[in-house]
Amino acid sequence: MTLTDELYESVKDIWKGYHEHPFVRGIGDGSLPIEKFRFYMLQDYLYLYDYAKVFALGVVKSTEPSMIRRFSYFVEDTLGGEMDIHSGYMERLGITDEEVARASKSLANASYTSYMLEVGFRGDELDILVAILSCAWSYAEIGHKLAEKYPEAVNHPFYGEWVKGYTSKEYNDMNDEILYLVNTLGDGISRRRVEELKEVFVNCSRYEGMFWDMAWNMEM
Amino acid sequence: MTLTDELYESVKDIWKGYHEHPFVRGIGDGSLPIEKFRFYMLQDYLYLYDYAKVFALGVVKSTEPSMIRRFSYFVEDTLGGEMDIHSGYMERLGITDEEVARASKSLANASYTSYMLEVGFRGDELDILVAILSCAWSYAEIGHKLAEKYPEAVNHPFYGEWVKGYTSKEYNDMNDEILYLVNTLGDGISRRRVEELKEVFVNCSRYEGMFWDMAWNMEM
Amino acid sequence: MTLTDELYESVKDIWKGYHEHPFVRGIGDGSLPIEKFRFYMLQDYLYLYDYAKVFALGVVKSTEPSMIRRFSYFVEDTLGGEMDIHSGYMERLGITDEEVARASKSLANASYTSYMLEVGFRGDELDILVAILSCAWSYAEIGHKLAEKYPEAVNHPFYGEWVKGYTSKEYNDMNDEILYLVNTLGDGISRRRVEELKEVFVNCSRYEGMFWDMAWNMEM
Amino acid sequence: MTLTDELYESVKDIWKGYHEHPFVRGIGDGSLPIEKFRFYMLQDYLYLYDYAKVFALGVVKSTEPSMIRRFSYFVEDTLGGEMDIHSGYMERLGITDEEVARASKSLANASYTSYMLEVGFRGDELDILVAILSCAWSYAEIGHKLAEKYPEAVNHPFYGEWVKGYTSKEYNDMNDEILYLVNTLGDGISRRRVEELKEVFVNCSRYEGMFWDMAWNMEM
Repeated sequence: MTLTDELYESVKDIWKGYHEHPFVRGIGDGSLPIEKFRFYMLQDYLYLYDYAKVFALGVVKSTEPSMIRRFSYFVEDTLGGEMDIHSGYMERLGITDEEVARASKSLANASYTSYMLEVGFRGDELDILVAILSCAWSYAEIGHKLAEKYPEAVNHPFYGEWVKGYTSKEYNDMNDEILYLVNTLGDGISRRRVEELKEVFVNCSRYEGMFWDMAWNMEM
Repeated sequence: MTLTDELYESVKDIWKGYHEHPFVRGIGDGSLPIEKFRFYMLQDYLYLYDYAKVFALGVVKSTEPSMIRRFSYFVEDTLGGEMDIHSGYMERLGITDEEVARASKSLANASYTSYMLEVGFRGDELDILVAILSCAWSYAEIGHKLAEKYPEAVNHPFYGEWVKGYTSKEYNDMNDEILYLVNTLGDGISRRRVEELKEVFVNCSRYEGMFWDMAWNMEM
Repeated sequence: MTLTDELYESVKDIWKGYHEHPFVRGIGDGSLPIEKFRFYMLQDYLYLYDYAKVFALGVVKSTEPSMIRRFSYFVEDTLGGEMDIHSGYMERLGITDEEVARASKSLANASYTSYMLEVGFRGDELDILVAILSCAWSYAEIGHKLAEKYPEAVNHPFYGEWVKGYTSKEYNDMNDEILYLVNTLGDGISRRRVEELKEVFVNCSRYEGMFWDMAWNMEM
Repeated sequence: MTLTDELYESVKDIWKGYHEHPFVRGIGDGSLPIEKFRFYMLQDYLYLYDYAKVFALGVVKSTEPSMIRRFSYFVEDTLGGEMDIHSGYMERLGITDEEVARASKSLANASYTSYMLEVGFRGDELDILVAILSCAWSYAEIGHKLAEKYPEAVNHPFYGEWVKGYTSKEYNDMNDEILYLVNTLGDGISRRRVEELKEVFVNCSRYEGMFWDMAWNMEM
């Protein structure tokens, strides 16, 4: 069993909850109230700046040139690639740069990103990738399952772009690369180390669940 | 208005909630179910190790010898002084070192301590003191208000020791010193800096509220 | 007097030493023995990975979105732009990826980069920019003075590319931007803060001097 | 072969240089000019604040309660115990708190402590202990060899106290404990990890050598 298989095993029940979450289903069938999505979009935008910071800690903590360059690419890709998907929505939702500048993270959001950053400050490159993975991988799975369950979801005039983003080849290639790196760096690590990484992965997966709840309840 | 006055102003409504919290009132009138207190005690014990780590980041981030020495004293005082109060309860509640070693922090607890540690890694000595202050100061206020409202609380055969600990001169001297240091380091800082510190203080105060809820609901 | 004027004032005697350094003059008049340049190039290549890490700490420590993006750009620009100049030389000098992987930083090199990284871990975005500035700015000045003093330097078949790199518009634009950011963030800071930043700038400038000595003496 | 045996093997030639260093021999035979010792004492005093910070990073990076408590004890022991030996000399040498406050670390000193701190920020508890060990262990060996080679050294009216400090049971117990912890945490680590730790140990040992040179030459 690879490390990512074992990590997956430890969170599969938590992840099932995402797929049945009213917010996620609402994106799939198009029934999600726009104001909930607007709230989510702004919080997720703030989240991504911290997500980029976690990758930046990967640049700092890496020893191999190739890893330094991968993490640097991930920083750029988050600030460029993933946030570009957001920019389209921000414009359509009338969220201006001023609103972003005035906005602050909800407590659930701040808890999640502080946790990842603290793992990054304290841990090594493998801790960082595992902290990152919960979001990256579960979004790929959500995109995939939505496209399967709601074949029309990608064509939805508003939410289709979101589904397309997370089912895109680019997004899934990035996620596959993180999975590959986790298994490469995790090859042959001790049992105790695996348990530590599972704790990080489970915690981040629980924060993902809280993030969907926060979005649904528009809860600061 | 001193910096600590301004910080207090920003959280006074949150803090009111602590004094009316069933967990806190239950300590005061002795009605708190022991199993809830047992849950709290174990989580608070785990919390204090991270609290000591935040002070240790203060040692690392300080530039003045006197501040390095103060933070070092706070680390020792947390691991020695405050955890000693806990040790008595741990024994009476039959919580062994093995149970502590096997225990893990609840998500509310992990969120709170990750937040403080992340502030410590990212910020300076003043950020660190403000992150620390919410717990230190609100416990002093809780002790004081309990002793006032429930004059018999200090004599309670089980919870009396807890109330005594947080109304003790030693505990309150330490808290007064943190208040003094915050006002000294905070003298003349910019408006923007004050707002940043208020955000840290408000967030920590909200985590304190979540911690009381977690304890009451015995929620992992 | 702007902050960068004041910083410059504090190191101008140290920087004079660079311009008269046999290594630097040897690049200008083409007399530098290739093996010394080869030693330098490999050490500088290793240096740039850490330089990118210091910028990555800027991503982590920044609060403003625009600063997060600037630092991310600097990381990319170091790993891409500046190291590309090196790649050409690496090839011409027959320095393979394997040799880079086996190489380790000289003690002078490790001292310099550890110092910058430690400043980055401990300090804020302004500390980080000032730590970065000594290298960025002095290379721009060296390029400029070499081009002035040795008009043929840019045409030298071997060293010309190096001189062109550091006199290029791209390189100088990046340096100008760092100067601008230092003056913007440094506007209105306290006298004590200025002194702290001067200490960082002077130390880094002394490390720059040690780096030229190390290169000239090929000293591990 | 234990990890500490292997670490020792990698630095034994560097350490031989300490025992033959004119500064060290001058302490042993009492011939060391006081002004050189005064310079050293002030720099070493500044060094110890950072040494305490490295231990404080150990508090932050440890996961086991027992390690958190050990590192906390080392912080206290450095600021209390070891600096107390210095305090006596500071008084006799007329070095006031004001002079300490005005003093700044020499570049060799700053390089050494920045290196250890950067290792501490980036690495884990084992990296931290290995960074610490070079100073702790070599001073124990220096004390031991001086006492052997110069039986009268401990009775020297001025330098005797220094020799006594580093040959004392307390000092050597602390060093033995660090050796024990390094071997315990280092049990069964990978070959690659051993090489990383050797690099840290060798670098710190070279900085120790630079520190003795700096003291002898009274070089800022």
